[in-house]
Amino acid sequence: MIEGRNPVLEALRSGRPIHRLYVQDGCQDGPVQTIVREAKKRDVMFQFVPRQRLDQLSETGRHQGVIAQAAAYEYAEVADMLELARKKGEPPFLILLDGIEDPHNLGAIIRTANLAGAHGVIIPRHRAAGLTAVVAKASAGALNFTPVARVTNLSALIEQLKEQGLWFVCADMGGEMMYRLNLTGPIGLVIGNEGNGVSRLVREKCDMVASIPMKGEINSLNASVAAGVLAYEIVRQRMG
Amino acid sequence: MIEGRNPVLEALRSGRPIHRLYVQDGCQDGPVQTIVREAKKRDVMFQFVPRQRLDQLSETGRHQGVIAQAAAYEYAEVADMLELARKKGEPPFLILLDGIEDPHNLGAIIRTANLAGAHGVIIPRHRAAGLTAVVAKASAGALNFTPVARVTNLSALIEQLKEQGLWFVCADMGGEMMYRLNLTGPIGLVIGNEGNGVSRLVREKCDMVASIPMKGEINSLNASVAAGVLAYEIVRQRMG
Repeated sequence: MIEGRNPVLEALRSGRPIHRLYVQDGCQDGPVQTIVREAKKRDVMFQFVPRQRLDQLSETGRHQGVIAQAAAYEYAEVADMLELARKKGEPPFLILLDGIEDPHNLGAIIRTANLAGAHGVIIPRHRAAGLTAVVAKASAGALNFTPVARVTNLSALIEQLKEQGLWFVCADMGGEMMYRLNLTGPIGLVIGNEGNGVSRLVREKCDMVASIPMKGEINSLNASVAAGVLAYEIVRQRMG
Repeated sequence: MIEGRNPVLEALRSGRPIHRLYVQDGCQDGPVQTIVREAKKRDVMFQFVPRQRLDQLSETGRHQGVIAQAAAYEYAEVADMLELARKKGEPPFLILLDGIEDPHNLGAIIRTANLAGAHGVIIPRHRAAGLTAVVAKASAGALNFTPVARVTNLSALIEQLKEQGLWFVCADMGGEMMYRLNLTGPIGLVIGNEGNGVSRLVREKCDMVASIPMKGEINSLNASVAAGVLAYEIVRQRMG
């Protein structure tokens, strides 16, 4: 299910296969008209239904009068991300999530990955949030554009990608200040779990440990904020 | 209500007035013992209660066996934030939220403000999230250290603070790339509403409009991620 006006519109525009679109009876405002027009243009079947029907279908409770029934989210392959970087003529930039559990964080990080120009997001198959409607909504449409791959063993993947020339940097306390690291080459940015940070095995595989300046009394940023700050340090260095 | 082990421990350690502490019967692990020891040290009344009682009291549903009943969150005054900056010998750095509605975003931004060394967060009295247990929990304890003020009219406040030497920068599309702005002086960083961005009135009062590089297909970062990226651009420039 894709719910809410922006996610549904983005899904339609990105050409993602939609089985059926449900629109609330009597909804006639601008954004809904745009969605209906887009659906007609793409031959997507749609029907008007009472609000109660949408409430029943909704997984997030915030459908805003539109729900699209899509094919299940497809996971991408890591090789496709490297191919995407090659096609764009950019050094690969991947974001690896070592056990992000909160679907809002996962969605926000996919959103950040899209805007920071990362070529993909890689998540572990176990003990981590997977792609759901909540994640899609929190990604604000980014899930339609930024590939997400799922792997069984993150540290084994890091080993393989190092052989293909990628460097890995993880975010952790006690690392080098991020501004002093060279983050301009082919890179994998590793973000740890909300409570426990990066696991020991994964940290040991990383070439660099980056720390964000911490001036306050508490210990750590929200995981999706930390991912944003580090991803944009990579953007800044690559622009420079 | 303050719920969860870290928030309760941070509240105790920060000396915040606690009326009463509830601990789950039979909870004897390390973190809980630390909380009980801290409560004794500070003469905070505590009692062991069955889990069901905690479940009843809980507002977030995630109490982890401890709930502290605190005085309602106290809002600070903007003048105290400027005084705090003066005492620390730092140019003032305030974060103004022009209508953040999601309490998780508000909490994450207070958390970021603490770690980025901001002297306070200012929120509008109306049409915005206020300080609640969900915000406190999302702030990961930062609410005990970083003052939050509430004002009726954000653009009037900006006028007043400009007379006291502060510059204001808001985050919006079509602004100058943030790296090219000088953000080192006394500054107020303005973050807009999740859906609608910065309101026209507030934007007109700002001295600078900053934009974050956007390389992807979608429009905007999550509000708390955008706040983090901009706050850390200020940190970077001030360190440089």
